[in-house]
Amino acid sequence: MLIVMTANATDAEVAGVVRAITELGFRAHPMAGATRTAIGITENAGAVDPARFTNMPGVAEAIAVSKPYKLITLECRAERTVVKIGDATIGDGGLALIAGPCAIESREQAFAIAESVRRSGARFFRGGAFKPRSSPYAFAGLGEEALKIMAEIRERFDLKIVTEALDEAGLELVERYADMIQIGARNMQNFSLLRRAGRSGRPVLLKRGMAATLEEWLLAAEYILAEGNDQVVLCERGVRTFSQHARNTLDLAAVPAVRRISHLPVIVDASHGTGKNYLVTPLARAAVAAGADGLMIEVHNQPERALSDGAQALGLEEYEQMVHAVRAIHEIIA
Amino acid sequence: MLIVMTANATDAEVAGVVRAITELGFRAHPMAGATRTAIGITENAGAVDPARFTNMPGVAEAIAVSKPYKLITLECRAERTVVKIGDATIGDGGLALIAGPCAIESREQAFAIAESVRRSGARFFRGGAFKPRSSPYAFAGLGEEALKIMAEIRERFDLKIVTEALDEAGLELVERYADMIQIGARNMQNFSLLRRAGRSGRPVLLKRGMAATLEEWLLAAEYILAEGNDQVVLCERGVRTFSQHARNTLDLAAVPAVRRISHLPVIVDASHGTGKNYLVTPLARAAVAAGADGLMIEVHNQPERALSDGAQALGLEEYEQMVHAVRAIHEIIA
Amino acid sequence: MLIVMTANATDAEVAGVVRAITELGFRAHPMAGATRTAIGITENAGAVDPARFTNMPGVAEAIAVSKPYKLITLECRAERTVVKIGDATIGDGGLALIAGPCAIESREQAFAIAESVRRSGARFFRGGAFKPRSSPYAFAGLGEEALKIMAEIRERFDLKIVTEALDEAGLELVERYADMIQIGARNMQNFSLLRRAGRSGRPVLLKRGMAATLEEWLLAAEYILAEGNDQVVLCERGVRTFSQHARNTLDLAAVPAVRRISHLPVIVDASHGTGKNYLVTPLARAAVAAGADGLMIEVHNQPERALSDGAQALGLEEYEQMVHAVRAIHEIIA
Amino acid sequence: MLIVMTANATDAEVAGVVRAITELGFRAHPMAGATRTAIGITENAGAVDPARFTNMPGVAEAIAVSKPYKLITLECRAERTVVKIGDATIGDGGLALIAGPCAIESREQAFAIAESVRRSGARFFRGGAFKPRSSPYAFAGLGEEALKIMAEIRERFDLKIVTEALDEAGLELVERYADMIQIGARNMQNFSLLRRAGRSGRPVLLKRGMAATLEEWLLAAEYILAEGNDQVVLCERGVRTFSQHARNTLDLAAVPAVRRISHLPVIVDASHGTGKNYLVTPLARAAVAAGADGLMIEVHNQPERALSDGAQALGLEEYEQMVHAVRAIHEIIA
Repeated sequence: MLIVMTANATDAEVAGVVRAITELGFRAHPMAGATRTAIGITENAGAVDPARFTNMPGVAEAIAVSKPYKLITLECRAERTVVKIGDATIGDGGLALIAGPCAIESREQAFAIAESVRRSGARFFRGGAFKPRSSPYAFAGLGEEALKIMAEIRERFDLKIVTEALDEAGLELVERYADMIQIGARNMQNFSLLRRAGRSGRPVLLKRGMAATLEEWLLAAEYILAEGNDQVVLCERGVRTFSQHARNTLDLAAVPAVRRISHLPVIVDASHGTGKNYLVTPLARAAVAAGADGLMIEVHNQPERALSDGAQALGLEEYEQMVHAVRAIHEIIA
Repeated sequence: MLIVMTANATDAEVAGVVRAITELGFRAHPMAGATRTAIGITENAGAVDPARFTNMPGVAEAIAVSKPYKLITLECRAERTVVKIGDATIGDGGLALIAGPCAIESREQAFAIAESVRRSGARFFRGGAFKPRSSPYAFAGLGEEALKIMAEIRERFDLKIVTEALDEAGLELVERYADMIQIGARNMQNFSLLRRAGRSGRPVLLKRGMAATLEEWLLAAEYILAEGNDQVVLCERGVRTFSQHARNTLDLAAVPAVRRISHLPVIVDASHGTGKNYLVTPLARAAVAAGADGLMIEVHNQPERALSDGAQALGLEEYEQMVHAVRAIHEIIA
Repeated sequence: MLIVMTANATDAEVAGVVRAITELGFRAHPMAGATRTAIGITENAGAVDPARFTNMPGVAEAIAVSKPYKLITLECRAERTVVKIGDATIGDGGLALIAGPCAIESREQAFAIAESVRRSGARFFRGGAFKPRSSPYAFAGLGEEALKIMAEIRERFDLKIVTEALDEAGLELVERYADMIQIGARNMQNFSLLRRAGRSGRPVLLKRGMAATLEEWLLAAEYILAEGNDQVVLCERGVRTFSQHARNTLDLAAVPAVRRISHLPVIVDASHGTGKNYLVTPLARAAVAAGADGLMIEVHNQPERALSDGAQALGLEEYEQMVHAVRAIHEIIA
Repeated sequence: MLIVMTANATDAEVAGVVRAITELGFRAHPMAGATRTAIGITENAGAVDPARFTNMPGVAEAIAVSKPYKLITLECRAERTVVKIGDATIGDGGLALIAGPCAIESREQAFAIAESVRRSGARFFRGGAFKPRSSPYAFAGLGEEALKIMAEIRERFDLKIVTEALDEAGLELVERYADMIQIGARNMQNFSLLRRAGRSGRPVLLKRGMAATLEEWLLAAEYILAEGNDQVVLCERGVRTFSQHARNTLDLAAVPAVRRISHLPVIVDASHGTGKNYLVTPLARAAVAAGADGLMIEVHNQPERALSDGAQALGLEEYEQMVHAVRAIHEIIA
């Protein structure tokens, strides 16, 4: 914590802040600048609440210096985390592909797509069983029936199943049928759900919230690690901005920014991150070029008939072309 | 739905879209403009998925025209909803005040604040029992103990209790002890929690999400009404923008914008909406001047010692001055 | 400047940074915290470039502490600036009203509106002669002809004329005919134009840019003051966010935030700040309640026939009702 | 234009809107939906002002359908524009590299960097002569002296010179010494400067404004084309969002989005688009993978001693490694 005094703070006001710091059992380091005095604080055990200082006379602002996350940092663990499900991995230097339809609509649809996903060499199949929908009247997924279809797909195609849990009851089911639990953007700060995922034996795919800062996203992961589950993959999926040509603004700088701070793998959802079919492949290529450990992609055998988010799904052929391109880029930067 | 063709779409492409519309059982209204043709769609029962058209040849864009919410609209119910808890009301033309500490820290603290809240004429006491915190290591509230303290406050000071539920288990407890269930900004699209609140007999205070559009916020309320609970109060609490001088950017235009569409009352949280003590009173005045049905305000007997969000709490005297000012403004615009 | 080291920075890395600071002729204040070391810098004459440190080994981040503006601060001049044009003032504690059409369209239109503006007690008339338009094909104002009409209005109605200059050539003309030069949001960082306005004898109304931070806006004003012109009024007019129910998101916290730092008056443009007729009056009331020194409002005698921005103009009667309400609110908070 | 009526609009209100459309000489196409009536407008010569309708009784909203730009569209010119300066090109399918220091600081610095730029195979040298600075007290460039140094660099290294003009006087100078005129983000809606650039014989590099929508950016280019200059290159450089881990949020979806609408080349400034050294190379790779026609990159021989923006400059060796990587990616996607 650094306390910055106003330019015309009096000596008594500076002394008042120093005294307050000392009374809290911390050490104060006053530094008189040309125009302002700043006072550093050390010997504090945990985070210091800025509120204790910002309303004191003569104080201009209180700047937090230390970061509230620990377990997710490279400082805490220098070796990069590799998430493993059987022989499929995320974060080991390879390019992980998680592909499939937005929502499981039927056994036929899911199998047709899974075949193409498998043929592309992807090791992970995604499909929505429980869909978070802005409107209470929109198709919300087939629920457990969808989970059963995906469990069959695992056996038939040797694909690992990734699917979203919307609440604790849903998480129980997802745990039973799937290989990896997805926490969606809308639930990134659903702390009860994060804690529950932290107590699960399954790896967790944690999407960034639509308005989440890097710090909040990393802290959401910290919630999961703090409960004992360190098999966490971060997934950038676009943030909400004024920009309207895509559904979200994909923030690819988040990929190297996460990697600089954390040992956790980071992938990119180029489908939700753009929301439009024609943007998916260029941005998927860009994500890999930026250093992502993998991609999450929506694929549909008949995009124009999809029950949800069809506008952003790739057709099977488009998907296979995209895979070809991103693999070539990944080889270059690896 | 309106389908806009590109300027150089061929007649065959226009005909293809018209055919696709007709095949879906809808009616197509082609309108040839000077540079482009647009095709209106009617006779559709529900919302039409733009995805069915956006990837067709010659299509520039598909524009949704109808709105997905129903029960919350003035078109559905012309009379404004008044939320009533005993003799205390929100939305009847008066100015509802919901005040109290961010978090209940102890019986002494809560009682000291409640006394001031009562003296100000407010009818609602807020206090956090379960606190959503970005960091897993921050103070997360006293839980049920806090709820018990607030139940005592209800009896002693004749104040109605408003407190947040973070999950379904917490909601059971909140229902038991409190008068009104708050759904926080981070949970605005926690659809399981919204549905559960919709099945509660208690009124619900629904905060706007940090990056929620007006439409998404109203749809979140629609989830609650769709389950049978129409005692919902909307609460603007600031959105996240690039602007850094306040913790959030309070979007006061949301107040008249909600009132133009919905019969539900709308209030403003000037404390979280600003995040800084010196901004609370000016923005609380502004909220009332903009037409809010009420205010939610954090008050603390010792703001500099608050365990959470002390930087934004008003001291007791500041709070009483604020109440005086907002009541005077409310009288003018009523 | 505060340099924060990574948690695992070595003693040699800390020493390296201290040496670099000393070599620049500054003084280093290392503070060893529980997990990290931070190093304060003092005795620097001007701002220190963070870049000199952020790429050094062991450095996590460099945090700027001092603010780059001077002349606009209360620390530099404790007394609030009152902008005076003859007997009309902004910033003296009264409520300044600047009203008129978006664009001057004809002598008849302008006079009809000016009469209503005068009758409302406003002392300032606004009207666009040069209009910044996103499209090169949109109506761009009548130019010098509009300035002549406004000069007539000054004589006839004893109103002070405020109008926008888009470039240096236009500023020469505006200076000749008008009383106050408006710098629009799109030109807030047109530094040549700011410097030219700083050399003018006329007061300047400086609108906030659509994505400007408080600091950038104050620095734009600093450009004008640095050239010798301290007759500057700041005007909040909404920022651009994801929120789509209003054209811009009016950031009313900017009003008290400016007042806390600067001696310059600050007003609010509730018309551009909302972009919709039905939002103007509620937000104008809110702006005054938040402590604004004045309002800028678009008024039109026939809003539905306006050549630009008709959707946000108040009709004459709506305008007069608004004036009545905001004056009453201003009396309460004064 | 599409006028959407409220659900409870009366027949008389619908008839009133139809009449208003007809009176303007346009044709009305009423379409009665299940819950609402919408009315299409055709036979309008130019854009219709929504304001003429939004305040009429029974009208819910007016939706603009046609786009205001023309000359920049693929509909207007199907063949992609190639910007040519001698034998150097942008937009012909190759990867154009524009590299150099943020600001020209001295002949020695500029020559050292130019040599590396030339060796990398880049054909364009960038260097700031006139720097837009938020603070009036920051280094603003060497002005004409810098232009002279760059003119020497052109001769010595056979590099084309790209440099920013801040105002019309500066543009005269830039035109005289340089090969390509840069219009910066802060001036994207400085319409006088855009028009002046449109009358220049030099190609123009037009950066996207910090809060500019795609449409506004394309309209800014339209200003230049409308004056007769079609040698325009668009440059994405990041937009301003709540996200703080990078200086700006690079919006790479803008690359394919521009290409879908316009025949103009589009490049990416990965230096200003990120603001941090360690982010530049990953995002430069991503930009090329997304389909950009080129890159603008800041290079410095001594980043830690740069007079401006040193934090984001690549060192010479980092730069050459980046060029190697982006060329390999470009070959894959070409």
